[in-house]
Amino acid sequence: MNGSVFILKGNIIYSKSPKEFHICERGYLVCRNGKAEGVYRTLPFRLGGSPIRDFGDSLIIPGLVDLHLHAPQYSYRGLGMDMELLEWLEVNTFPEEAKFESLDHAREAYRIFTENLRQSATTRACVFATVHRPATLLLMDMLEKSGLDTYVGKVNMDRNCPDYICEETEGSARETLEWIRDVLHRNYENTRPILTPRFTPSCTDGLMEELKKLQMRYDLPVQSHLSENPGEIEWVKELCPWAEFYGDVYDRFGLFGADCPTVMAHCVYSDEREIARMKENGVFIAHCPESNMNVSSGIAPVRRFLEEGLRVGIGSDVAGGSTENLFRAMAHAVQSSKLRWRLVDDSLEPLTAEEVFYMATKGGGGFFGKVGSFEQGYEFDAVVLDDSRLAHPQPMDIRSRLERMIYLADEREVRAKFVKGKEICLS
Amino acid sequence: MNGSVFILKGNIIYSKSPKEFHICERGYLVCRNGKAEGVYRTLPFRLGGSPIRDFGDSLIIPGLVDLHLHAPQYSYRGLGMDMELLEWLEVNTFPEEAKFESLDHAREAYRIFTENLRQSATTRACVFATVHRPATLLLMDMLEKSGLDTYVGKVNMDRNCPDYICEETEGSARETLEWIRDVLHRNYENTRPILTPRFTPSCTDGLMEELKKLQMRYDLPVQSHLSENPGEIEWVKELCPWAEFYGDVYDRFGLFGADCPTVMAHCVYSDEREIARMKENGVFIAHCPESNMNVSSGIAPVRRFLEEGLRVGIGSDVAGGSTENLFRAMAHAVQSSKLRWRLVDDSLEPLTAEEVFYMATKGGGGFFGKVGSFEQGYEFDAVVLDDSRLAHPQPMDIRSRLERMIYLADEREVRAKFVKGKEICLS
Repeated sequence: MNGSVFILKGNIIYSKSPKEFHICERGYLVCRNGKAEGVYRTLPFRLGGSPIRDFGDSLIIPGLVDLHLHAPQYSYRGLGMDMELLEWLEVNTFPEEAKFESLDHAREAYRIFTENLRQSATTRACVFATVHRPATLLLMDMLEKSGLDTYVGKVNMDRNCPDYICEETEGSARETLEWIRDVLHRNYENTRPILTPRFTPSCTDGLMEELKKLQMRYDLPVQSHLSENPGEIEWVKELCPWAEFYGDVYDRFGLFGADCPTVMAHCVYSDEREIARMKENGVFIAHCPESNMNVSSGIAPVRRFLEEGLRVGIGSDVAGGSTENLFRAMAHAVQSSKLRWRLVDDSLEPLTAEEVFYMATKGGGGFFGKVGSFEQGYEFDAVVLDDSRLAHPQPMDIRSRLERMIYLADEREVRAKFVKGKEICLS
Repeated sequence: MNGSVFILKGNIIYSKSPKEFHICERGYLVCRNGKAEGVYRTLPFRLGGSPIRDFGDSLIIPGLVDLHLHAPQYSYRGLGMDMELLEWLEVNTFPEEAKFESLDHAREAYRIFTENLRQSATTRACVFATVHRPATLLLMDMLEKSGLDTYVGKVNMDRNCPDYICEETEGSARETLEWIRDVLHRNYENTRPILTPRFTPSCTDGLMEELKKLQMRYDLPVQSHLSENPGEIEWVKELCPWAEFYGDVYDRFGLFGADCPTVMAHCVYSDEREIARMKENGVFIAHCPESNMNVSSGIAPVRRFLEEGLRVGIGSDVAGGSTENLFRAMAHAVQSSKLRWRLVDDSLEPLTAEEVFYMATKGGGGFFGKVGSFEQGYEFDAVVLDDSRLAHPQPMDIRSRLERMIYLADEREVRAKFVKGKEICLS
């Protein structure tokens, strides 16, 4: 498709800002060399000879961006939902992740995960794997083949986890180096490594220092968890009494956005200093509303983040969240913001459909570059949604049809999907 | 099927109490004369000649009971989700409901609603229609034909609503009487009328008195809304300064459970006196967690209701809720109870999968009689769920498979469905 032009026709919707949708009814979306060239109500004469895919009355939106999910946890999505974070990790997560030492298990589990992610409306994702290098490479091979564009991290953890899954500091650093080298040899087109210290309680200072060396040597981005749960935050205070606040731990080791792109999941309890530092450092926040309900964490002050101009996207956080379906995540974001407004702080207005859609597209897309919009020069990620399954007797405008998708759409609505101008096979 | 016996084979799960599931793996569920006769691990010799439907590894659960939903609002499910209750009624609900004066509109809208409800896992429902008698009868005809078992109410409202949908007190009573007579003439098997004063702000004292007369004359049950939103509760205080609390208004008119089965939706802000009165009167509470999020109401103290021994079921509350899918409602009930525990009152433990499943089956089923369980003598409502769409690499026990359904199932999982021993056509 490179070097060439093609055009999608349909009801085009995208965001430039969190404030409003840009809607072009029965319009033309032009892709040139894998990038969006423009959205037109009438096709410009100069493009008259280019191939057009007419999707009729379907909706065409930017591909959705999942800023945080755990591929190995997909197997137990919707299970063990009666625990708080730290107990849930101990009982559910660690034993399941340990199974990925077996490549046979990994092959089957990651096949299911990759299949379902491919069929969803997601085109980009930041993915946690496990500590296991071979299984992580296998996952990356599969994601590369799917055509999705992802960052994938081999997890690092060298303390406060069961022996059967705990790394030694040096071993963890060595395996990570090996893994990065393996990845570079593979010359993936759409699959990149991202440093993934699980979270502060699982990573010694020594390991953080080793990871920073790798970060600098290979110029890598970083993903981790931050201020998700009150118990976790207290624990971090005990482990790192020298830190000003939780996020300061990552920052002291140079793994908090200042000189490397960084995405932090949750930020439910970030205080003023943490919010200020994230803003200063350009840290991306992955808001994961369903997970924050399921493991009883709370509700992040997303309105505050948006007002401060922080960079916020949406994460499914499978399997703290039960589904890879980011429409569901958008609905949960609106819903939990309403409960926060009602129950915690009525100075922060609930989120709107416009805002959560922005977060799930251009907001999170920023972590991948010019991604998540149809503005000129953006990488061409597009999803075509056929909403005819959801019958209705009354006329319905395009904005309403999109709002309804947020509450009701799943992979059945995805009729076609493009990543960087290449069509993804959905069958 | 009456006078006869048939048997379903599969993984049978049901509740006797909110505390635990009763599970019979690869067991036999016997229906005799439309009622559950027993659940057996090995088929008793005496039943050897009876027809058996073998559903293999599928799950078999009691039909789900939706204690509260609005059929005319199904058209705009997932829309207009940026308003609080009272504004939402004004902007969204009343104009849409007014359209049901047209039987053509009603026919198309109710066809879609009935179709989708039939294909869901719901077997019983308490349904609000609109003020319009002909459209309400049409809805009842359609529901009767579907095979579902429902209570349906023509809505009454004679104040505080736009002229185009507001009734006169006498006219409202007269139309309701006509409607009841029409319904009785139709000799439905599965469709019954229920008195439906919209809520106190919409109903004058005079109308309530008229409805009580009809209640006594025809021995009818009652459904309405209660203590959903702080603004609504303040309004009721102004309208009825003589009442001890909101629910006391209904009780003074004899429409609050004391001598007629009554279901009240929401009860988010019920105080001690209201809770005590509901307990005393045996009022059923329809907990509608998604709606309570979507219109920014809050979170009902369901744990408290269960501890007090109140009768609690689940409602989808379409279109305050976005979907008729009661699995989603169960997940929302667990999720919002966790946020309530975290943010409002940590003395009330979050709800468990066992508890919300009980509420969606036997809890709400009590409003319909012996409904919602497979205990002996219960009416035979059963739903067969094929969960093979949700692939997983690891072994999974029956309880886990059911928990996962709560988060992930929709109508695609419904493989067969029985109401009072009769199979519902799903195609």
